[in-house]
Amino acid sequence: MKNIFIASTSTVHGKGYLEYALPALKDFFKGVTEILFVPYARPGGISHDVYTKKASEAFSLIGIKIKGIHEFENPSDAVKKATGIFIGGGNTFLLVSQLYKNELIDVIKEVVSQGTPYLGTSAGSVVTGLSMQNTNDMPIIYPPSFSTLGLLSFNVNAHYLDPDPSSKHMGETRATRINEFHFVENIPVLGLREGSWLLVQNDKIILKGGLSARLFLQGKEAQEFPDATDFSFL
Amino acid sequence: MKNIFIASTSTVHGKGYLEYALPALKDFFKGVTEILFVPYARPGGISHDVYTKKASEAFSLIGIKIKGIHEFENPSDAVKKATGIFIGGGNTFLLVSQLYKNELIDVIKEVVSQGTPYLGTSAGSVVTGLSMQNTNDMPIIYPPSFSTLGLLSFNVNAHYLDPDPSSKHMGETRATRINEFHFVENIPVLGLREGSWLLVQNDKIILKGGLSARLFLQGKEAQEFPDATDFSFL
Repeated sequence: MKNIFIASTSTVHGKGYLEYALPALKDFFKGVTEILFVPYARPGGISHDVYTKKASEAFSLIGIKIKGIHEFENPSDAVKKATGIFIGGGNTFLLVSQLYKNELIDVIKEVVSQGTPYLGTSAGSVVTGLSMQNTNDMPIIYPPSFSTLGLLSFNVNAHYLDPDPSSKHMGETRATRINEFHFVENIPVLGLREGSWLLVQNDKIILKGGLSARLFLQGKEAQEFPDATDFSFL
Repeated sequence: MKNIFIASTSTVHGKGYLEYALPALKDFFKGVTEILFVPYARPGGISHDVYTKKASEAFSLIGIKIKGIHEFENPSDAVKKATGIFIGGGNTFLLVSQLYKNELIDVIKEVVSQGTPYLGTSAGSVVTGLSMQNTNDMPIIYPPSFSTLGLLSFNVNAHYLDPDPSSKHMGETRATRINEFHFVENIPVLGLREGSWLLVQNDKIILKGGLSARLFLQGKEAQEFPDATDFSFL
């Protein structure tokens, strides 16, 4: 029985950290009083302590305590004992490197597959997929592998962005990048727009947040799916 | 005696492939009648043949023949015999994977260090740096290493883009990404705007193209340097 909340972003424009998602998170974490926070992705290079404090402040608004995984001597044990897990966003390469370094890939996959509620935002959402190959982040560190938690049977592109028709910039669009991926691999990629999340419960994978999502399959035209779609067919 | 042309992009908005750079390239490749083209980065997933044809058409306008490295049985020999080398843009992860697979990193570094003229555009420019850690590309394939040619003693961020102050998108800006890199590594990063290139000759590394470039050093504020700056101090 999985219970997973996969958010495209922690923060939507004009709101505070996690603010847009707090009502849904209050419901999602009902009965949970403490969550283990994984600050490894260090957005903007902030320290584990500073990042954990930020998560703490947001969750205090819905009466939940946060403890940083870096405060534990044995991170693997901390995961096993956690009543909830939250992996925050930042740099996916750094996050994945740290998950491998601390030997956490298998244990997180195991406890989350057995029902420990899991929240991911941005990079923390990317790692719920089969691989981190659809991250938007810069490869600032070389991880031992691109394979990730595989809690989904597809990959997530967080912060999915439609092409800007007025742009004069010649760098690749997000869609072009994902299509290039499909010349190399046959893994479906779901582009989640900021403000959207997937709710994985009882073998359903429901799109939430009021926006459509864009699905990329190898050799096919990308397709829009409306809010409330169940992506468990992937 | 190095002779290297490191372009941020192959194409600027509103012009044809390589068009903006052809006058400078004609001068750069003076006396060269045939160039070895490395199409490994496959922009948009196009084939090696299609990509080579595209490069061929552009270079025919300045009377230079192009031969694709994939047409040779022994790519390493082709590099050694080449009178000019051009590595085109596309996906940096794919390019670097192929360079390692075909054992070309050392041999390209060697011949270019000894004077074979080298042109890089976009991904082909990123690989002239110490590492590919400042690419903007999606990690569609896992390369054996992020280390690249090291023809420069710094890294290049191609297609450098200033933050858009009107954007409501919450994904990281380019500057934020490069700053995150500097929490992990102490390699200078030069952000080259589209239309700019570096001309490496006689131990000088001159910025060309009429635009300024943005230099990121660990622990310092990023700084603009005007056209014609010599970056050999890095």
